[in-house]
Amino acid sequence: MTDRLEQQLDFILATEALRTVFRQSPVLNTGRKENSAEHSWHVALMAWLLAEHANEPVDASKVMVMILLHDLGEIDAGDVFAYDEAAREAHHEQEQACIVRLAALLPDDQGEKLLALWEEFEEAETSEARFARSLDALQPMLLNYHSEGGTWREHDVYEAKVTAVKSPIAEGSETLWSRAKRLIADAVDKGFLKT
Amino acid sequence: MTDRLEQQLDFILATEALRTVFRQSPVLNTGRKENSAEHSWHVALMAWLLAEHANEPVDASKVMVMILLHDLGEIDAGDVFAYDEAAREAHHEQEQACIVRLAALLPDDQGEKLLALWEEFEEAETSEARFARSLDALQPMLLNYHSEGGTWREHDVYEAKVTAVKSPIAEGSETLWSRAKRLIADAVDKGFLKT
Repeated sequence: MTDRLEQQLDFILATEALRTVFRQSPVLNTGRKENSAEHSWHVALMAWLLAEHANEPVDASKVMVMILLHDLGEIDAGDVFAYDEAAREAHHEQEQACIVRLAALLPDDQGEKLLALWEEFEEAETSEARFARSLDALQPMLLNYHSEGGTWREHDVYEAKVTAVKSPIAEGSETLWSRAKRLIADAVDKGFLKT
Repeated sequence: MTDRLEQQLDFILATEALRTVFRQSPVLNTGRKENSAEHSWHVALMAWLLAEHANEPVDASKVMVMILLHDLGEIDAGDVFAYDEAAREAHHEQEQACIVRLAALLPDDQGEKLLALWEEFEEAETSEARFARSLDALQPMLLNYHSEGGTWREHDVYEAKVTAVKSPIAEGSETLWSRAKRLIADAVDKGFLKT
């Protein structure tokens, strides 16, 4: 048990660095960007509240765990902007290598579970993974909308691109995708997003 | 369903501000303090991994949810330093008022659940709440130890005070408290903590 605990604590200490990985989305009213740890917290809280809107029944606690760990690969790989499609493919492999490194710190059973949950999230083939991905995609839209355009404005991202990149939200939740489309339309109306 | 979703999104937006509440503990290798949202993420991840060390069997997913929301009251009340005992009592009421305000944003059933889980955490009368509190108390000790004393050094906190304030860790997990005592002893040996 002592060895297990030491391995777990080594992992916990190594994950702490997710707080130093900065994303593009803003923390409202601060002028700073959010980091991947506080993003993961916010999306996990969303999972607890919004599970009823998933297309298929989901195990909300599995969705939460998946969200808590889905960005850990960024500790070595950094974050890639959602609208930078060219960078996203190479990024997947770098993140995977980081997850393998972190998993090796844990007791075998937990390391395997970490890897399996991370891969499940990436592959988007279960209802939990699809719903977790919907929430992960929706959260920055809320932040961009409520900062009068946020990163859309900053990086000249247009309405058609937001719609294309965010449309997989529908695979996890048609309800959330309907709401997201309304948010996009409102953002265009208000001048937060160009067409 | 639409009304429910709008209420849920209002709440999600209001909770975003937990990222602007700063605590005393450091983010390692950055020179900055951690905020309560990234702290909550880190402790929730610990819950997933360390549930096997709880004194009594715990529903790990309930522990995780409790941790994700346990600091939301700080959005209005701010954070109080763990070693500032005088401030802690008044703080409880301010946090409660904030939780009541936030719960009113949610659909009734979810607002009630939020309040109940927050109170359960505060009262520490269930195995889940005691274990969640153990993790919440342990996490900053790891950060202080691995920053050569962190806030202990900065605020002249001595070994006897750390031991007294942190001893309730044993109520959730004797295993984690044994480990925490060893961490305290090591910190004294290394000169990170005064006696």
